[in-house]
Amino acid sequence: MITLSTSDPAFDRDFTALVNARREADADVARDVRIIVSSVRDEGDAALAAFTKKFDRHDPNETGWRIEKSEWLAAYQGLDPALRDALDLAAARITTYHEKQRPQDSDTTDDAGVRLGARWNAIEAAGIYIPGGRAAYPSSVLMNAIPARVAGVSRIAMVTPTPDGEINPLVLAAAHIAGVDEIWRIGGAQAIAALAYGTQRIAPVDVITGPGNAWVAEAKRQLYGVVGIDMVAGPSEIVVVADDRNDPQWIAADLLSQAEHDPTSQSILFTDDAAFARTVADAVDMQIGQLATANTARTSWDANGAIIVTASLDEAIPLVDRLAPEHLQLACDDPQALFDKVRHAGSVFMGRLTPEAIGDYVAGPNHVLPTGRRARFASGLSVLDFMKRTSFLQLDEAALAAIGPAAVALAEAEGLPAHAKSGRAASVTHHTARLALYAPHRSFRA
Amino acid sequence: MITLSTSDPAFDRDFTALVNARREADADVARDVRIIVSSVRDEGDAALAAFTKKFDRHDPNETGWRIEKSEWLAAYQGLDPALRDALDLAAARITTYHEKQRPQDSDTTDDAGVRLGARWNAIEAAGIYIPGGRAAYPSSVLMNAIPARVAGVSRIAMVTPTPDGEINPLVLAAAHIAGVDEIWRIGGAQAIAALAYGTQRIAPVDVITGPGNAWVAEAKRQLYGVVGIDMVAGPSEIVVVADDRNDPQWIAADLLSQAEHDPTSQSILFTDDAAFARTVADAVDMQIGQLATANTARTSWDANGAIIVTASLDEAIPLVDRLAPEHLQLACDDPQALFDKVRHAGSVFMGRLTPEAIGDYVAGPNHVLPTGRRARFASGLSVLDFMKRTSFLQLDEAALAAIGPAAVALAEAEGLPAHAKSGRAASVTHHTARLALYAPHRSFRA
Repeated sequence: MITLSTSDPAFDRDFTALVNARREADADVARDVRIIVSSVRDEGDAALAAFTKKFDRHDPNETGWRIEKSEWLAAYQGLDPALRDALDLAAARITTYHEKQRPQDSDTTDDAGVRLGARWNAIEAAGIYIPGGRAAYPSSVLMNAIPARVAGVSRIAMVTPTPDGEINPLVLAAAHIAGVDEIWRIGGAQAIAALAYGTQRIAPVDVITGPGNAWVAEAKRQLYGVVGIDMVAGPSEIVVVADDRNDPQWIAADLLSQAEHDPTSQSILFTDDAAFARTVADAVDMQIGQLATANTARTSWDANGAIIVTASLDEAIPLVDRLAPEHLQLACDDPQALFDKVRHAGSVFMGRLTPEAIGDYVAGPNHVLPTGRRARFASGLSVLDFMKRTSFLQLDEAALAAIGPAAVALAEAEGLPAHAKSGRAASVTHHTARLALYAPHRSFRA
Repeated sequence: MITLSTSDPAFDRDFTALVNARREADADVARDVRIIVSSVRDEGDAALAAFTKKFDRHDPNETGWRIEKSEWLAAYQGLDPALRDALDLAAARITTYHEKQRPQDSDTTDDAGVRLGARWNAIEAAGIYIPGGRAAYPSSVLMNAIPARVAGVSRIAMVTPTPDGEINPLVLAAAHIAGVDEIWRIGGAQAIAALAYGTQRIAPVDVITGPGNAWVAEAKRQLYGVVGIDMVAGPSEIVVVADDRNDPQWIAADLLSQAEHDPTSQSILFTDDAAFARTVADAVDMQIGQLATANTARTSWDANGAIIVTASLDEAIPLVDRLAPEHLQLACDDPQALFDKVRHAGSVFMGRLTPEAIGDYVAGPNHVLPTGRRARFASGLSVLDFMKRTSFLQLDEAALAAIGPAAVALAEAEGLPAHAKSGRAASVTHHTARLALYAPHRSFRA
């Protein structure tokens, strides 16, 4: 953990180093993933079975490629009732929030007589990646599958590795609640390749979303274009902006809620009070020891944690924008005033009573959010990731006469005679257009 | 050019081959691009100058790195008046269409007392790639820069290669009209890398859009994640669905308007009349010879063109969906009836008087559209590509009491104790929450 102060003469240099620090995997992963992807593309299920034997230590030809729906239902029915209620509440709230994201179609006719608009359609098939092992989270199933379902996707195929053949029943129960259609016992870069290209058993999908390790993220990046993807995901991160009238134990817990995710996660506190900064640092150290996830949290906090003391909370906001954090907590009396100045953040948690962990599970907004400064240009997962827009045009004779000649002039200037002819052909029989049409179409270069 | 008929027993096999035919560049390009990208990332302007000397045959240290705004203005003022009017009309119509794409923010408080919503912000800086040489199109400048401007982007940096130092004044004039802020005389994969990482002279951007050759497209794909990109662009394509009551010369011109773009472009006609199919094929052969772009159009039509005879126009639509074409023309009396059945297309041109070329220039919708079957999951360029969404939450005591315990239960079930503590900490002091809080939080696995 580093402590910085904006009053320190070296602050700019040190903060820039913090902003630019890379916490993501590198070249070797890319090479390995290229080999895996091309093997699955060329050999299909045979390659998939071989990689599953190698990495997950079971043979899907023996353990079964698919997990049947009866098993999901059994997992759901076997849930502790309080947990089932919690998952049901989360699913209902996530559904309500995402239903408001459905985009509007448009269809208008303008003064020139040109009908123009845009129509949204759902994609046909979505692939959802859910990690196995340590990070087998039912909340990830809800957060990925529900937006696809709300978008109107016909087929949701989930893949999840089952190391040594084992599966987390919570994940199956969440798939049941979220309306998933298929679950395949595969994972890693090989599962992403299978979803993108299809294999003998698995039909290809159009969009792949969901969290994963560095290999999964790299496979999605390499296959972007063959399929749509949600984003390139990196380690999780939180920035907390807090004054001294917060309980330091709460703020410490909020910082640790990211640190415990992964050794590469990052937690940063901005505060306008140096004494409060020290108290929180002490509280973090005290709490870490009590966590079952202590090792991960300790590594993350030591390597990537930061406490930054500013002259005021306002001074923190331009610095927060440079970090463009995945999660931003504004723990103060008037969070709206600060939020109004924020430009780059994935999701914002306002006030002293809105811990980020609430947003991870039950509040409604998606917890799949841009990491690694990508909130500069990217958004959290939404219904839009599972839909696409078709624009359309319809002209009548008058409309063609009004705008056709300009198109012809531009096509000729660009040296595209068939474009010009196409634009002209349609207008040539109409007297209204004839005048404009036979005006000399001078090329700019002539 | 191949001719298929749905009545042929081998149709399914032949059509599937057509759908799966790849017209895009391959592995060698990826390797070359990796080398270029890492050189520019590590060496900045020096690498950029070296690649520009090698590929564009001029040294930007001598010819100048930037093109000054005074030159853009001179180019605009020097335009043929008819062409200037055409560009101004196009810019005005494109602006109007894209202004309607600005997304709505949301901010509501639900029955549980949870305030939740989403706010859209523009990205800060956009990079626009405009090809030089044969494909130096002013329309591309308008189609890329105007959506960024409408989104509210603060800085639009355009890059365009100037082979042998030469620049197309039409492109400069369009940059003046569209409100571009900077123009750099660089191109290729090296220009994409410079925009993504920044160099000593060029500040980095957040999103890169614009058409380019295989190297440019591959560089964008490799740098996706470092920056946002519009999409992975491939060769242009058109599908025309036409009955026999169209002028075959018009349909031939429409097909050729894509064929002339590039040898890898693709033009496909679906018609329900075999005699009309033959007439159009003859008209294409006749018109090609008259084009200044004859060589390109001939290569494209011979290698990738297709005419497909169906029993009815309705029968064509599911086949069109499998192609998910960039451009779809529905040249018949009731195009709406067909359009209602289309799921996958980038842009649709309805009726006999709406040639695709109109949409390339002046109609208003964007001409940057998904190619290579990507309309299955991708949309045309829009204002949304230059904006991103921040979700937000705000809870009070009652709201936290209502949904906090469910979050705690899920966090504990996922084995994330700091998440649970973070959710619990905030609710611990409130009597309303205490009851729920101290209920046993049973882990599913326990």
